[in-house]
This record gives sequence, C-alpha cells and structure tokens, in this order.
Amino acid sequence: MRTLGDVVVITTEQVMSSKSHSATLQSPLYVRLAEESEGYKEYHCNGTPVDCVKLGYQRVLERWPDLVVSGINHGSNAGSTVVYSATVGAVVEACMDGMTAIGFSLDCFDADADFDHLDAAILSITKKVLAEGLPKGVCLNVNFPKRCAEPLKGIKICRQATGKWVEPFEAHYDENGNVYYDLRGEFVTNDLTPDTDIYAVEHNYVSVVPTQYDWTAKSAFDSLRNYESMLLENGNQG
Amino acid sequence: MRTLGDVVVITTEQVMSSKSHSATLQSPLYVRLAEESEGYKEYHCNGTPVDCVKLGYQRVLERWPDLVVSGINHGSNAGSTVVYSATVGAVVEACMDGMTAIGFSLDCFDADADFDHLDAAILSITKKVLAEGLPKGVCLNVNFPKRCAEPLKGIKICRQATGKWVEPFEAHYDENGNVYYDLRGEFVTNDLTPDTDIYAVEHNYVSVVPTQYDWTAKSAFDSLRNYESMLLENGNQG
Repeated sequence: MRTLGDVVVITTEQVMSSKSHSATLQSPLYVRLAEESEGYKEYHCNGTPVDCVKLGYQRVLERWPDLVVSGINHGSNAGSTVVYSATVGAVVEACMDGMTAIGFSLDCFDADADFDHLDAAILSITKKVLAEGLPKGVCLNVNFPKRCAEPLKGIKICRQATGKWVEPFEAHYDENGNVYYDLRGEFVTNDLTPDTDIYAVEHNYVSVVPTQYDWTAKSAFDSLRNYESMLLENGNQG
Repeated sequence: MRTLGDVVVITTEQVMSSKSHSATLQSPLYVRLAEESEGYKEYHCNGTPVDCVKLGYQRVLERWPDLVVSGINHGSNAGSTVVYSATVGAVVEACMDGMTAIGFSLDCFDADADFDHLDAAILSITKKVLAEGLPKGVCLNVNFPKRCAEPLKGIKICRQATGKWVEPFEAHYDENGNVYYDLRGEFVTNDLTPDTDIYAVEHNYVSVVPTQYDWTAKSAFDSLRNYESMLLENGNQG
C-alpha cells in the first residue's frame, strides 16, 4: 500500500479471530500512535476491527480516506465462513460508512505462510479499485490461494460458496471435573461449482466476491407475502 | 413458546450487545443445566449466542429442533444495524447449520419496556413458520414497534433499510490523563420507503425481513467482470 499513497494503519492489540462485526459497547476505547514515518502512521487500538474503522474515520484520520484495506488475514475468508470474519467485518463497516473497502485473506493458516506471491495481484486489484471505485453498498472480499509450484492463474469474480463449520466438540475435563468444549471445527461445503470463491481458490485463482451488507432475501418475498394477511388478534387463541 | 411444544433454552451468561456473529475460539466453553421442569430445560453458557447454537444442536439437544428462536431482544435490530446483532447472529448460525430460525426484537431500549402487546404476533408468526417452514438459506428477522395507544396494525414483509451508526466519539480522560472514547451513537437512515423494515416499525407494523447469509452482491458482477482480464504479472510495474 505504501507504494500507492500515504498509509494510516489502525490495528487491534489482540487477536480478533472469529470476532465478526463486533463493536465495543461496554468499555472505553483507546487509540495510541505507535509509529510514524514519511507517509506512514501506525495506531494501536484496544477494540475490534470494526471499532478501528469507526474511530479511524471519525477521530484519527485528517481527511476522508481514498480506500480502506483490511488484512491480509492469515486464513481463508472464502465461502459462508465470511460471517465470522473480523477482517471482512472491518470492510463491511467501512462500506456501510460510505468508504471504498477491500479485504484480503490468504487460504493458509501455517505459522510460516508465504505471502510473497501475492504482491502483484494485491497491487493490480487495489489500483483498479482506486481508479474505478466500487458500486454503492458493495465492498470486495478477496481470497488468495496458498503458494504452490505454479504462479497464480488469474482473478475470478465469484459468488460466496455455501457451507458450514462442523465441530467435533469433544468433551474435556477441567481440574474440578467439569466438562468443557473447544470450538475447533472444519468448514464443510458441497457447493463447489466453478462460479464459487472456494472453487476458484482451490484451482489457484484469486477469488473476488462483491459483498453487500443488505442481507434481505428478496427471492423469498413472494412465498412469504401471505404473512401479511394474518390476523394478529386471534393469534393467542391457537 | 411453551404453549407450542417442549422448550430448551440455552442462554449466555453475559450481555452480548453488539457481539454480532462472534464465536469463541480462544477459551473453553461450559454449558450447565440451570433449570428443569415438565417440557422445559434451561442451560447457561459462557460463550456467545453463536456458540450457544453450535453447542446446542451438536451437544445439548437430544434431537434435531423443529425451530430455533432467538430473543426477544431489548432494542431494535431493524435496518442495516442487523450486522451488529448477536440476536440475529444466532439466527443466522442456525440457518447456516440447516435449522429453521426466527429472531425477535423490540424497538425499545427502556429498562421497563412493555413486551405484553407482542404475544399474539409472536405466536402467529411462529405457528406459521412451524407449519410451513422457510425457504432454504433464509431465516427471519422480526422487529416489533414499542407499545403505543393503538394495537399493532399487522405484519409487513420488508427489506432491510440501509443506514449507519454515527458516533459522536467525544474525548474523555482517564485518571492518567489519557484520552478514551465511548462507542455510543445513533442509527441514521434516509432510506425510509414503505417497503423497509424501519418504516414498517415506525408505522406500528411488525416487520418481517427474510434474511440470508449469502452476502454476494450479484448485481455487481457485470461491472466487475473486467477484473478477470488483468495481467497479474505486470501488477508490480504499474
């Protein structure tokens, strides 16, 4: 990003895996300047990524940003697992607030994951978004394949694959003999047509999912319209 | 709900306002039986509403539930503020996991908010969902107006109104003289056509928004398709 313009980083102090679109309502939010150099400022915040966006544009930045970039996340945010993502949470918040926003994630959880194969793609996508903007109410969820022997094949505009996390939830016992569980599952999907983000990433393409915060299922309107003719006053009489 | 069938409640121990679709990855999850009577069991969990759903169907329930109900939330989840909602987070999780799910919220934050005017509508909607099911991948986000002099006018199938929270972020100072902020804003919208949930609730109707976890903005596909022709190898040389 520093090759493209002035950069202001606002990062969380804690790991925010699976914090989704959480905002901090019950405790005070601090933002402190941690580093500064020519064209670069870095702030640390004790809140969530969504808090960082809110504080960032309303308190930290001196002008409206040209672009909000979140990530790059260490782990995939492709498919419907996106609903848990705090990386994408920040992007959606920025989009709701009227800013142009992109989230980047790498499909690799390895501690020594290689990010070097992504520079060209990140620059290409970012420059295009800066030059052309995005449709109103739309942000981008970009996922990259992990490094393999071949170069990236290209970019695909995709839909979010449908799936779910399945947890084994094995019972553990603490020192008092009480049962507890760890939430450690795996994302399972059988929605792998070539137009999905997961298919693209698995085939060494960069997936770009245009993403919206309007969750209305308009396709369900017709089948639910008859709810409007229910007589509520009789509801208690079953 | 107890007039309709056996009820198993799994509730969080902490207030979960604005926790969205958070799941607990870093700490052990406990669920303990707190109350039991004929046709009723109540469990308390130290996690989030999403954790409650995951543990509920995979560990607590003895059979697949006919319906997952979340709420009733003390405060509106109409409009795009839904992205912060942990009440709706639980509903979306249940929907992703394949269950039929409804979230109820009341447009009133008052400590002594009156919920008694809602019984008939809650029963009517719940019975209809139990009888007819919901389209695949769709759950319901139901919002009720606060009690006023007139009875509820009826039910409206709505789209989610677009808006955003605007925070004043006034600077406060702690005992060490450091600046901190409180995230206390108000939801601002000018998207108030009669087909929106916020308009319906403001006009004393119950709003029912069919809600999906597929966030793909398909309307943006055409305008973004030319991303696919970018040459990534040249991206660094721009």
